[in-house]
Amino acid sequence: CFTYICNMSKAEKNFIHLCNPHLEKMQEDILYHFALGTGTHDLPALFGDVKFVCVGGSPSRMKAFITYIAGELGLGSPGSEHPNICAGTDRYAMYKVGPVLSVSHGMGIPSISIMLHELIKLLHHAKCSNVTIIRIGTSGGIGLEPGSVVITRKSVDATFKPQFEQVILGKSVIRSTDLDEQLAKELMQCSKEINEFNTVIGNTMCTLDFYEGQGRLDGAICLYTKEEKLQYLREAFESGVRNIEMESSVFAAMCNLSGVKAAVVCVTLLDRLKGDQISSSHDVLVEYQQRPQKLVGYFIKKRLGKV
Amino acid sequence: CFTYICNMSKAEKNFIHLCNPHLEKMQEDILYHFALGTGTHDLPALFGDVKFVCVGGSPSRMKAFITYIAGELGLGSPGSEHPNICAGTDRYAMYKVGPVLSVSHGMGIPSISIMLHELIKLLHHAKCSNVTIIRIGTSGGIGLEPGSVVITRKSVDATFKPQFEQVILGKSVIRSTDLDEQLAKELMQCSKEINEFNTVIGNTMCTLDFYEGQGRLDGAICLYTKEEKLQYLREAFESGVRNIEMESSVFAAMCNLSGVKAAVVCVTLLDRLKGDQISSSHDVLVEYQQRPQKLVGYFIKKRLGKV
Repeated sequence: CFTYICNMSKAEKNFIHLCNPHLEKMQEDILYHFALGTGTHDLPALFGDVKFVCVGGSPSRMKAFITYIAGELGLGSPGSEHPNICAGTDRYAMYKVGPVLSVSHGMGIPSISIMLHELIKLLHHAKCSNVTIIRIGTSGGIGLEPGSVVITRKSVDATFKPQFEQVILGKSVIRSTDLDEQLAKELMQCSKEINEFNTVIGNTMCTLDFYEGQGRLDGAICLYTKEEKLQYLREAFESGVRNIEMESSVFAAMCNLSGVKAAVVCVTLLDRLKGDQISSSHDVLVEYQQRPQKLVGYFIKKRLGKV
Repeated sequence: CFTYICNMSKAEKNFIHLCNPHLEKMQEDILYHFALGTGTHDLPALFGDVKFVCVGGSPSRMKAFITYIAGELGLGSPGSEHPNICAGTDRYAMYKVGPVLSVSHGMGIPSISIMLHELIKLLHHAKCSNVTIIRIGTSGGIGLEPGSVVITRKSVDATFKPQFEQVILGKSVIRSTDLDEQLAKELMQCSKEINEFNTVIGNTMCTLDFYEGQGRLDGAICLYTKEEKLQYLREAFESGVRNIEMESSVFAAMCNLSGVKAAVVCVTLLDRLKGDQISSSHDVLVEYQQRPQKLVGYFIKKRLGKV
């Protein structure tokens, strides 16, 4: 596949690259978890103009984002409902306004990985070009004031290595989790221009579990001490980790292989050096979750020359 | 924790066991992803009578199940709506009727693991006893007619080992994925009594990915041949695997450690030796997905002396 990427011409590089020679032989492609397909939907007509894809765990947050961005871009009448394009399934929700697609991905690497396989195929079938994908999510911070936003430099695993390990046909495969450096800097510049909340560029640790996998003491199972937990989180901090979430590694790995520029922008809901429970009030948490949306909304407006 | 389990008296064994000494010291426990908590909800009053917990990936399927079981048990008036107990969040959906709780868990090990941590704590806080948990799900079959139901004997990993590997504080921990043998036999007996669809007891392979992780040729990325895929699936079949899904290993491991009897009952939507795409009609797939519900509904009725 790497050879395949190297052989692409510059023109081709702007399109979505499918690292799968088998797909060419398929008559029809059913995107099962979206309830969409090449045989049932005119994907180029529906999605061909997409330039920005924003993804996040919660379906209602991704619906709120499309309403927000529609307002910011002056597209669609205020108060109008944006239909869920994936209404035929409850696995994911998808919304579109102008060049912006907003898709939910659930929680965890396997859930976002299913979504990304089908999203990348969708963008390819739709003949989209020059697409930027940004994950806007929530996370636990390390050594940051709650509400701070982290733009991911590198996504690292639970041993702080910038890699994603995956089992394919029973064998372990290691993939790079590089993200687009220029895009991260561009987003950081946007945050400076907005100047409304603390934003940092830092490493993001991606784990397979929220409780034991992130060193929490408040799960149904916990067989380590508070001191062992804190030592682990301090080591993470010293290695450059500023927040912990559960999707960035496979997101970076898959966008890399597909030749799509990608970024991860997450707000921190608490400082894990100070606790484990998410105990801020509902209103405070709602405002925190709007910060990545504001930042990415501003970025999109700027890219479209509307700032 | 194993010592702790061995020290439990028989009476204690009927309650939910929390493998976490830190929880006793907490004044309040916020079950964040359920939008429930000990400080805001009377959990014993709300959930103390729960004896059967059914979990599945899709929220709408778990809503359909509670409507179905309410009808079967003659509880609640026909056509009445069952409110979503977790309406304060869109991470999971939860419904209850009499002694039956129905909870969605999303897709993949991390997503079900967050739900199970909070569910096990909820059942403990509610002082529930003699609880049986059953996952009713969908899966890909191997060498079975589509629509067949598999009751899991052992949940195995992508190398066919009956274990769940988890990273805790950066170190790998291996946990047993044993399921209750007696419960599996009891469910098999129920299927014989219903006599409506093919049911087998077999091993279930649990993977972290739907496409490459299950040897599919139709993902956005695929770097192996059809022959390599088929060899892998045949090896799985020879080792006793009859279906593949994405949640059973951590489900078995966590129920084991918490002293809860657990079973996994999944319908197979296709035969992976014959293809990768889920191309059956909507109506056929809907009927398939009702089969685990029928089987587990009959089991609950029988346990309650209503058959």
